[in-house]
Amino acid sequence: MGDVSVRAGIIVTGTEVLHGQISDQNGPWVAERLLEYGLDVAHVTICGDRPEDMAAQLRFLTEDGVDLIVTTGGLGPTADDLTVPTVAEFCGRDLVLDRALEADITTIIRKWRRFADDHELAPALTAAIAKQALVPTGASPIPPTGTAPGVAIPADQYRPTILILPGPPRELQAMWPAAVDVPAIAAVLARGDDVVHRKIRAYGLSEADLAQTLRRAESDLPGFRDLEVTTCMRLGEVEIDTRFATAEEPIYDALKTLLHQEHSAQIFSADGAPLDELLAVALAGHTIATAESCTGGLVAARLTDRPGSSSYVLGGIVSYANEVKSGVLGVPAALIGELGAVSEPVASAMAEGARARTGATVAVSTTGIAGPGGAVPGKPVGTVCFGLAIDGEPTRTVTRTFPGDRTMVRTLATTFALHLVLGALT
Amino acid sequence: MGDVSVRAGIIVTGTEVLHGQISDQNGPWVAERLLEYGLDVAHVTICGDRPEDMAAQLRFLTEDGVDLIVTTGGLGPTADDLTVPTVAEFCGRDLVLDRALEADITTIIRKWRRFADDHELAPALTAAIAKQALVPTGASPIPPTGTAPGVAIPADQYRPTILILPGPPRELQAMWPAAVDVPAIAAVLARGDDVVHRKIRAYGLSEADLAQTLRRAESDLPGFRDLEVTTCMRLGEVEIDTRFATAEEPIYDALKTLLHQEHSAQIFSADGAPLDELLAVALAGHTIATAESCTGGLVAARLTDRPGSSSYVLGGIVSYANEVKSGVLGVPAALIGELGAVSEPVASAMAEGARARTGATVAVSTTGIAGPGGAVPGKPVGTVCFGLAIDGEPTRTVTRTFPGDRTMVRTLATTFALHLVLGALT
Repeated sequence: MGDVSVRAGIIVTGTEVLHGQISDQNGPWVAERLLEYGLDVAHVTICGDRPEDMAAQLRFLTEDGVDLIVTTGGLGPTADDLTVPTVAEFCGRDLVLDRALEADITTIIRKWRRFADDHELAPALTAAIAKQALVPTGASPIPPTGTAPGVAIPADQYRPTILILPGPPRELQAMWPAAVDVPAIAAVLARGDDVVHRKIRAYGLSEADLAQTLRRAESDLPGFRDLEVTTCMRLGEVEIDTRFATAEEPIYDALKTLLHQEHSAQIFSADGAPLDELLAVALAGHTIATAESCTGGLVAARLTDRPGSSSYVLGGIVSYANEVKSGVLGVPAALIGELGAVSEPVASAMAEGARARTGATVAVSTTGIAGPGGAVPGKPVGTVCFGLAIDGEPTRTVTRTFPGDRTMVRTLATTFALHLVLGALT
Repeated sequence: MGDVSVRAGIIVTGTEVLHGQISDQNGPWVAERLLEYGLDVAHVTICGDRPEDMAAQLRFLTEDGVDLIVTTGGLGPTADDLTVPTVAEFCGRDLVLDRALEADITTIIRKWRRFADDHELAPALTAAIAKQALVPTGASPIPPTGTAPGVAIPADQYRPTILILPGPPRELQAMWPAAVDVPAIAAVLARGDDVVHRKIRAYGLSEADLAQTLRRAESDLPGFRDLEVTTCMRLGEVEIDTRFATAEEPIYDALKTLLHQEHSAQIFSADGAPLDELLAVALAGHTIATAESCTGGLVAARLTDRPGSSSYVLGGIVSYANEVKSGVLGVPAALIGELGAVSEPVASAMAEGARARTGATVAVSTTGIAGPGGAVPGKPVGTVCFGLAIDGEPTRTVTRTFPGDRTMVRTLATTFALHLVLGALT
């Protein structure tokens, strides 16, 4: 986009994130929120618990001219938790004990530990609370959603606005509404562009084909360059993410029309609604059961991931061993012996067996070779047969070969099974 | 650790990572590898596809004095893929077409697209290949593991050694062995400290209790400060990660003894082996089946995640609806009617039903309230009852209440179920 002007940087703290032990959820979450406000997220940086490394990142983002820095983590009661003192020093501000905040945190701790009001706190605990209640001069504390308060520091002549948020994702997310209401933060966010964010999802569309359509858009659609289009492949789906200024809506509409012209068979969500949401709508009035071999329960787990799924998911059978395929699902052992467990007739019998066992109106089955072992001539690793049995319709089957390692084959097969159901019901 | 001296920075590129659309796998993976070589990972930075932002990050890491910069991504054939030209410009090196590399990439593309040897490639494709075969002067190309080669650039007077790797995690990981053998890279890695990395895993240990033990270690164990201890809570388990120079091994042994003294009941892995690996060992000679309600297939999916799990996993029943609990697992409907589906007697009957249906020697069951709805008096959201039926032993049951949202309750319940099995078999 030509005129995105308010830039932001995010500093994620935590040695366990820096060292790759845990994957960070906060950077992506905060980035998405800032983008919604029309800010341009220029950098995300990750640092450990060394104050000099954090100070270097604060200097870097400041020198690069960002208007807002959001930090996550490092607000705990231990000596390792250095965010507030490090930022305060960077800003040349003293730390002052906020008595009201100290009292609030004490109340929270007493409640959590179920201490009576007259219970005397251990000196170490009192010291820890006092540490968390230190606020840089001129900054606004944000009420804790765990035990740690957030802090908002207004910009000055030399430094951007800084928002300090806690590390536990639930605390951070719970604090966000209060954080964006602090005047210093609200003022920066208000300067964000008037940005619209639209999403289209497709399944079975190759990145190469999509790239070709986007090249056509670039040459044929005047103003296409004013849209910021990001395409992203995940779990076999392509997500086409577009951000643009409100005035550019007609250009986006032209792009959307072109995409639908070229890829109508692959686009399953024109407004960005995710598969699981569309599936829940499609399954209203139906009941569903699963019969899984190579996916080992992932299809059922994905279906039940959604609150309220109990109104249409009856359950499923994970028939990993052939005896379970025969014994529980009623797949004839002779069929397995003759054609192998990874075959369309077995997939068909599994789906029908799941319907028969549970009484569901719809059943979907998977049987395949997730690897690394198990390949047989004509059935390489990645081969998966699917069955779909729907009340009153002939049972369908289909075979696909998925690329990648065991985890990827299982994941791609799970997504395929769900798309099979969605496609049949809509 | 006092004397870690070779510092590294990692630059992750990709607008979809920067904007939080996909979570980055490369930064954590490369960080872990560099730590194994005894390097000190000081910063990980994420940038989009704007060359000026990447250049700013290269300057930042260089000014901060890192000895090695590893970049991931941005090596594709499109104009958005700017890593090589941006790094070359930063290093003041020209880009030169490497004819041998161009021929190699052409061969790969022909093979992928199944083109005959005399098939003439489209001009756009030829141009894309030539772009990917551009190498900065004095740099070493690393053979592609997808279509994009990596690049290693030796340090000069003003700039650190730079290693450019592709973005797709499988390509990056496949390229790593060749990358670390390039003389310029091998030279930096060889300067890494002689570092030992040890891991202990515990379940059911609170971070507060662990912190107390570590404070005791700090006051009682001479030299404790020479260990770099990181503790990390994930999925209800605590991982205690320690890095130290080889000479400090006796101090680590003293810490290990102290941890075992204080938390022997919670430590399930003294050498860092993960739960799933220990479970596979414990299940040798057994067969297992699952009966899942609130976890909806996650326990079965986790058990079958491991290659070779078919030698002990028979399968499972996802009995989400009560009719499936009765109809397939044989849980008496009266029992459900009287005590509710979330009760230890129902969990017990589910586990026994799964054993009976599949013939497994071990069965584990879950039935609970994942939320957000479904709470009843005395059974808040997060309440989960577990059953464990083992051949020749009385069936056990236990109830736990887990914190968090639906996804967290389901995940924590899955981990608990697996620990229940491990604890009973070892």
